[in-house]
Amino acid sequence: MSAGKLIGVGVGPGDPELLTLKAMRALGEADVIAHFAKAGNESHSRAIVAQHMRAGVAELPLHYPVTTELPKDCDAYRDAIRDFYDGAAARIAAHLDAGRTVAVISEGDPLFYGSYMHLHTRLAPRFPTEIVAGVTGMSGCWSAAGMPIAQGDDVFAVLPATLPESELTRRLAEADAAVVMKVGRHLPKLRRALAESGRLSRAIYVERGTMAEEKMIPLAAKLDDDAPYFAVVLVPGWEGRPGGEP
Amino acid sequence: MSAGKLIGVGVGPGDPELLTLKAMRALGEADVIAHFAKAGNESHSRAIVAQHMRAGVAELPLHYPVTTELPKDCDAYRDAIRDFYDGAAARIAAHLDAGRTVAVISEGDPLFYGSYMHLHTRLAPRFPTEIVAGVTGMSGCWSAAGMPIAQGDDVFAVLPATLPESELTRRLAEADAAVVMKVGRHLPKLRRALAESGRLSRAIYVERGTMAEEKMIPLAAKLDDDAPYFAVVLVPGWEGRPGGEP
Repeated sequence: MSAGKLIGVGVGPGDPELLTLKAMRALGEADVIAHFAKAGNESHSRAIVAQHMRAGVAELPLHYPVTTELPKDCDAYRDAIRDFYDGAAARIAAHLDAGRTVAVISEGDPLFYGSYMHLHTRLAPRFPTEIVAGVTGMSGCWSAAGMPIAQGDDVFAVLPATLPESELTRRLAEADAAVVMKVGRHLPKLRRALAESGRLSRAIYVERGTMAEEKMIPLAAKLDDDAPYFAVVLVPGWEGRPGGEP
Repeated sequence: MSAGKLIGVGVGPGDPELLTLKAMRALGEADVIAHFAKAGNESHSRAIVAQHMRAGVAELPLHYPVTTELPKDCDAYRDAIRDFYDGAAARIAAHLDAGRTVAVISEGDPLFYGSYMHLHTRLAPRFPTEIVAGVTGMSGCWSAAGMPIAQGDDVFAVLPATLPESELTRRLAEADAAVVMKVGRHLPKLRRALAESGRLSRAIYVERGTMAEEKMIPLAAKLDDDAPYFAVVLVPGWEGRPGGEP
């Protein structure tokens, strides 16, 4: 019996209409649909594709271990996460060995800051794989905001808000356009870095772009400094600059 | 009569299966489909959607003026491009004023280095607009290469190969992951900048990702220094680094 195929399927930023035709085909072909979720939560990627799943298709939920009590740079955290991905890969490998096609559905694009890549690196050396590119979360955000993000010879940067303040400030000042991710509790620091780098007036704060609960507001007008982890801040290039036209 | 709607429709990186359901709906709803092309060439975005266009739908081809004889920073170039976008916006506005819905199809994502945004900034203040986010060309490239590009707290940069060599070297050294666009005649310079920044061994050269004529090769193994303008070079973050796992 020949091994099944592993498919990393990008399901886009949240709006189920932003699924691609290729993702629809993969969902139709898969014997098993695997999805990540926090323990006790529904999978976001599953919610996006729910209306397109074949009735009765096998599902493989992969629940991240609860690690919030552990600091991210400690060995116990790294061990727990590594064990989780090793175990998830082994469960998928068992299906692949049995000749089943497994689709791992991933929010956004599977190879751009996605959990799928932890499975890909473990399984791609042993099994046939296919990647279905997806619309990224950040594309969903700037599209929902109707905001041209980068043009021409702009340098564009994706920055985690976890960076130290001085580094965030310097990198914001050096990029023409930027998306800052993982905002959460780092928002006060990010606000200072945006002000220091001269980018605050054109920064837009977005929560849940393309989803029903979507929220967006100029960052300068956002009065409190609380934000969820998945909020992003957009700093447009070209359009925000004098002389950006034509 | 109420004005029609302008829709900026991302059609993805080249594979017609990477169209979204939302793009399909926009193509079905549009009274007029507008597309950019170089004078004398077929429109790439039109080729991507050709099999999904309604029979007999009105088309509005927008041909870039021939400006190759003008340096990009000269006033005559800027004037020619500005006049072209002004004229294109006026032609679309006439359809919108007549109550027609106009879809402008755009390779990749409409607001990420796309020509559509020149129309958007001219028309969005006057007409209802909608953006259909698309899979970017760079997502298509790293997906076709099966290469995880960025993970965790990686800093990711999109850099035009037009940058001066010293700046390209510095920015490559400072990013964890990068995509370099507009490679073309800048490849010898880019190769030196990648070597100098210690990134050459993990750089991948990609032409026409997700398309039938797709070509990818480690940059270090590419023997000549000729490349088309639209070739990109991928520099993966996480996966390329020791300790990138888990």
